Amino acid sequence: MSGNTFGRIFRLTTYGESHGPGLGGVVDGCPAGVPLDESVIQRELDLRRPGSASAGLAGTARKEPDTVRLLSGVFEGVTTGTPIGFHITNEDQRSRDYGDLAKLYRPGHADITYDAKYGLRDFRGGGRASGRETVSRVAGGAVALALLAMHDIEVRAYTVEIGGVPADVVDPASAQERLFFSPDPDVVPAWESLVHDVRAEGDTLGGIVQVEATGVPAGLGEPVFDKLDALLAHALMSVGAVKAVEVGAGLEAARLRGSENNDPIIPGGFHTNHAGGILGGISNGQPIVVRATVKPIPSIAQEQITIDTNGRPAPLRVGGRHDICAIPRVVPVLKAMAALVLADTLLLQRRMG
Amino acid sequence: MSGNTFGRIFRLTTYGESHGPGLGGVVDGCPAGVPLDESVIQRELDLRRPGSASAGLAGTARKEPDTVRLLSGVFEGVTTGTPIGFHITNEDQRSRDYGDLAKLYRPGHADITYDAKYGLRDFRGGGRASGRETVSRVAGGAVALALLAMHDIEVRAYTVEIGGVPADVVDPASAQERLFFSPDPDVVPAWESLVHDVRAEGDTLGGIVQVEATGVPAGLGEPVFDKLDALLAHALMSVGAVKAVEVGAGLEAARLRGSENNDPIIPGGFHTNHAGGILGGISNGQPIVVRATVKPIPSIAQEQITIDTNGRPAPLRVGGRHDICAIPRVVPVLKAMAALVLADTLLLQRRMG
Amino acid sequence: MSGNTFGRIFRLTTYGESHGPGLGGVVDGCPAGVPLDESVIQRELDLRRPGSASAGLAGTARKEPDTVRLLSGVFEGVTTGTPIGFHITNEDQRSRDYGDLAKLYRPGHADITYDAKYGLRDFRGGGRASGRETVSRVAGGAVALALLAMHDIEVRAYTVEIGGVPADVVDPASAQERLFFSPDPDVVPAWESLVHDVRAEGDTLGGIVQVEATGVPAGLGEPVFDKLDALLAHALMSVGAVKAVEVGAGLEAARLRGSENNDPIIPGGFHTNHAGGILGGISNGQPIVVRATVKPIPSIAQEQITIDTNGRPAPLRVGGRHDICAIPRVVPVLKAMAALVLADTLLLQRRMG
Amino acid sequence: MSGNTFGRIFRLTTYGESHGPGLGGVVDGCPAGVPLDESVIQRELDLRRPGSASAGLAGTARKEPDTVRLLSGVFEGVTTGTPIGFHITNEDQRSRDYGDLAKLYRPGHADITYDAKYGLRDFRGGGRASGRETVSRVAGGAVALALLAMHDIEVRAYTVEIGGVPADVVDPASAQERLFFSPDPDVVPAWESLVHDVRAEGDTLGGIVQVEATGVPAGLGEPVFDKLDALLAHALMSVGAVKAVEVGAGLEAARLRGSENNDPIIPGGFHTNHAGGILGGISNGQPIVVRATVKPIPSIAQEQITIDTNGRPAPLRVGGRHDICAIPRVVPVLKAMAALVLADTLLLQRRMG
Repeated sequence: MSGNTFGRIFRLTTYGESHGPGLGGVVDGCPAGVPLDESVIQRELDLRRPGSASAGLAGTARKEPDTVRLLSGVFEGVTTGTPIGFHITNEDQRSRDYGDLAKLYRPGHADITYDAKYGLRDFRGGGRASGRETVSRVAGGAVALALLAMHDIEVRAYTVEIGGVPADVVDPASAQERLFFSPDPDVVPAWESLVHDVRAEGDTLGGIVQVEATGVPAGLGEPVFDKLDALLAHALMSVGAVKAVEVGAGLEAARLRGSENNDPIIPGGFHTNHAGGILGGISNGQPIVVRATVKPIPSIAQEQITIDTNGRPAPLRVGGRHDICAIPRVVPVLKAMAALVLADTLLLQRRMG
Repeated sequence: MSGNTFGRIFRLTTYGESHGPGLGGVVDGCPAGVPLDESVIQRELDLRRPGSASAGLAGTARKEPDTVRLLSGVFEGVTTGTPIGFHITNEDQRSRDYGDLAKLYRPGHADITYDAKYGLRDFRGGGRASGRETVSRVAGGAVALALLAMHDIEVRAYTVEIGGVPADVVDPASAQERLFFSPDPDVVPAWESLVHDVRAEGDTLGGIVQVEATGVPAGLGEPVFDKLDALLAHALMSVGAVKAVEVGAGLEAARLRGSENNDPIIPGGFHTNHAGGILGGISNGQPIVVRATVKPIPSIAQEQITIDTNGRPAPLRVGGRHDICAIPRVVPVLKAMAALVLADTLLLQRRMG
Repeated sequence: MSGNTFGRIFRLTTYGESHGPGLGGVVDGCPAGVPLDESVIQRELDLRRPGSASAGLAGTARKEPDTVRLLSGVFEGVTTGTPIGFHITNEDQRSRDYGDLAKLYRPGHADITYDAKYGLRDFRGGGRASGRETVSRVAGGAVALALLAMHDIEVRAYTVEIGGVPADVVDPASAQERLFFSPDPDVVPAWESLVHDVRAEGDTLGGIVQVEATGVPAGLGEPVFDKLDALLAHALMSVGAVKAVEVGAGLEAARLRGSENNDPIIPGGFHTNHAGGILGGISNGQPIVVRATVKPIPSIAQEQITIDTNGRPAPLRVGGRHDICAIPRVVPVLKAMAALVLADTLLLQRRMG
Repeated sequence: MSGNTFGRIFRLTTYGESHGPGLGGVVDGCPAGVPLDESVIQRELDLRRPGSASAGLAGTARKEPDTVRLLSGVFEGVTTGTPIGFHITNEDQRSRDYGDLAKLYRPGHADITYDAKYGLRDFRGGGRASGRETVSRVAGGAVALALLAMHDIEVRAYTVEIGGVPADVVDPASAQERLFFSPDPDVVPAWESLVHDVRAEGDTLGGIVQVEATGVPAGLGEPVFDKLDALLAHALMSVGAVKAVEVGAGLEAARLRGSENNDPIIPGGFHTNHAGGILGGISNGQPIVVRATVKPIPSIAQEQITIDTNGRPAPLRVGGRHDICAIPRVVPVLKAMAALVLADTLLLQRRMG
């Protein structure tokens, strides 16, 4: 009930702080027979790792190998149906000296809300508010991806906009190997120079990530509170920095007429996919398409107006090198969350079928 | 697990089909001592009733009194802490003769997905896909609103855009009494003429609804998977026709710089509210502000391209009078869903300090 | 979380007080296609009804027809897969004048614990502590029994001991038609005279009920916390007045040697069934056999030592006609609870192979 | 849903197999500020360790240090409110050569049911069926015990009967230091010689364990499906080898008259405790008293009748040294399970209160 477990049938429970011994989790409900080993999980973890290729100039300083170790649930390269425990050791644990920072509430950060909730700024919230918490999501999501792959379901995530500069979705298949997880080779230089300029201004950037799942059979999702799109919205919005979730046409649907928004049905499929692959909360066999809006990183180099823990005004200036855009780190996390929802919904459907 | 229950501590379970004896539900987990009687619930139900004042020209033909009856959990005008059972009888049960419609998949509707999921078009999905299912949500939400009121938390929902025409949020307090639940008296005529024109074209309209909760104490929400905004996204996206959910600046946050998006912190509060009252998934004491994008109603008067249940092309033309915009019906439902999340989160948080 | 919902996939949520408008509930997760109508539920309700044939001399004064009404989820005699709502109106609502009783804590009753929990003796606890709450369990259990019947699983419950006088399980098949739900025609006269004598003494009797499920396939149950026997123990112990739950050999297993307790395995089955049909928490294909010990009814005619709500000593003497033994009322409830567990476990297991 | 998580607010999720890298789990929902470090958990683990003092002659051959490592959720000797991850490495992993055993179904074991459930004898079930799974329960229970201690709630478990030979509960306080966890110094020699004799016969013994919780405030537990005794029954029955659970007078209540079974209420308490500290599913302030019947260990040295995996008769003779009685290993597990229920119920009550 503290919200560290996600899912109904395929369930991920996570633990770990950024400056503790490590992070990890338990995947319960994964059927036996899914091909899985540490390399399968490591591949996904490497995508979100600070300083991974995709991060590029937007990346962070902290270096973490993020090496996963499987603790149970896998035997001779396949899952056994028992809970899958995994752990990632924190190598770079040195607590930086925050100095006066510790006495200030950083705008856009959870400092002030954790203080309100727990009365203790570092206890409880502290480590869990850190982006490092998402390491466990990516590891758990990797198990979900392996299960989905067995059912010929593929999940992709790529960046469709940074700082207001949109990408064309021309080559999503190779976005994973491209800088910023871009589905569009041509936009990369523009994004790079934007990151360069914004860094010079001591500012940061937001963007939009699209997650697409192909091969999803029609019929997944429950009709009332647990609609497939509702679960996906929950999953994506649970990732820090996400401020909006769209399905299919999303916000644009508010401006379309019914005659424009409806997807004409043709033998074997649909003409368009404004629905994003979901009708009445249930998958319709088209690709599932959802987007998440990622806010700009709140830690900026410019001086900011804030207060200290005693409620007194205190200007804040954060030094050191910073991330400019969270996108490269968030893309694999959003992919993992979507995979968790799809794996869970798939198993629930098989049970109730 | 069929998704007819929502919530963790304050839980709503619903039942009922549009053409069965009636609809209702059970609210479990409501503490004792909350002032409640049928009139409190009826007030909310009347807001969503087909043909209610707010519906105006966009409204539907079906007439339902939607009179609620409390079956348990209330004694002498206050809740007793036991489960609160309620029931709303369907008066207008006559099954319209759908004729050939029954053999066609209506674009934008769940016909085709229910068929895929249940193998039976009317069984299971049928009644639950209907908008009438939301009657139980509004009734359950009314109980949540009563609980929240005891804690000086007020939830409002109003329309901020229809068919691309935005409203200014000048008077949200009286939006509930205004046509289209508009927070802006001046935009109403424009919306009315837009509805008039679009009806003439045999088309329909979408829009955007904003839900605002004031008086929410700082500290509500869990830091990882059950962030307050994640639960709200789940709740709002679970309402049929919703295609996007935004928190605070929402989609706009993708285009703002960190220096623009951060809310400067001042003694006793914040300068702005781009965060929508939530930081790191936890309420910060500012008003909670979320928006839901509602797609245009899929039932249009124009002929549409579709297939029949045998997969053969079959043009569809739906006769009769139709709703032009779902907004007037959806506003009270979105308000109810937000109230359910806040009541549940408030109870989970209580005594944690 | 207030514990008015039971089950994981096949879930029953109940509501209602003994002196309110009525009692009822919602069954969620029942698949489509299960033959069901009000008569199927009524048959089970009639078995537990105060003053039903089986109650005999042990029965109560209160007369309730307990007529069930289906509110949703059933169409043309079969379930549709949507939630099944049902309601039973309280006819005999007149609140008896408890007089001074209201100021005393009755020994063996929940008066004192509800007061401690809710601070209000009647609020919350009041009606839910009443035996009438079990009406909803029997109705929900009837749906489970219908589902199980489709899978050729039969559940029986019968009385194996009253007041220390055991019955021989010679004819469980017709126990349902027999006084006290006795599986043994010969013991009935002994039980009748025992009830007669104990009534004369102003005292009450307890007993033991056995629940047997045949046709349960091997493989149901989860290996760790949700063992099939653990769920059954939870279910049976949740029925008021139950003080012990046994599986198979039960308490006797503590005195047997391993060589005596082990069930020799033979082609196609087992020699004995000390395991009660469950090994390692998973069904083994033999009949599931569990027993529940029911304590004597706490309301006796003799004067008792107790205190009033102010904590002062106050002798208690309850007048009027009383039940002598809860067994006849409890048997159908225990049967229902076992059916709920089996239906839920069966659905969870389905398609897992 | 695979049943590897236990609890509602205070939740334990476990993983691990007897012959994998290790075992562990995650405790979610533990509030911040509970004094905890590895030694606190180790103390409980040492009690159940194969070959621990208490095991005595009944003990096993396998040697496991069972050293626990905390992975998260604890900072400077107190819990932080974040999930508490822990891991115990398997040292003695060498898979014994089962030889022909692998082809036979051992009577009283889960071999045959796992085969029926998973189609694979070792996969899934294998490791989780092993008694080693309970290591994680004891570790999680240790956290619960630490939380309860903060509220002056103490939980004790001791052996009240072995092989039909009962103990007098004269000194439960020091049972933990005594052979067989006996509350009675005088019975130990009798139990020792009984174990000696039964070993000579190649047979095994069962027994009864009592768990007692003192300092439990009145008011814990929910009135309907989640009665405190129902949760305790679920918890204790989920431990392998347990065949019966009793509360207070337990089975004996079936033979008492109401006048004998009722606990007279006196100022400040009760005269007796036949209720076992629970009335109407809610704690009454008296000590909570529950008992679990443990069946004799199914692995005996005598030849047994069974079949092989092809369904053919095949006599089974197990060689090597065996445990004679599971009691010494099970006592700390039952204590842990009771602690988990009480911690969970305590936190739920605080939230709803």
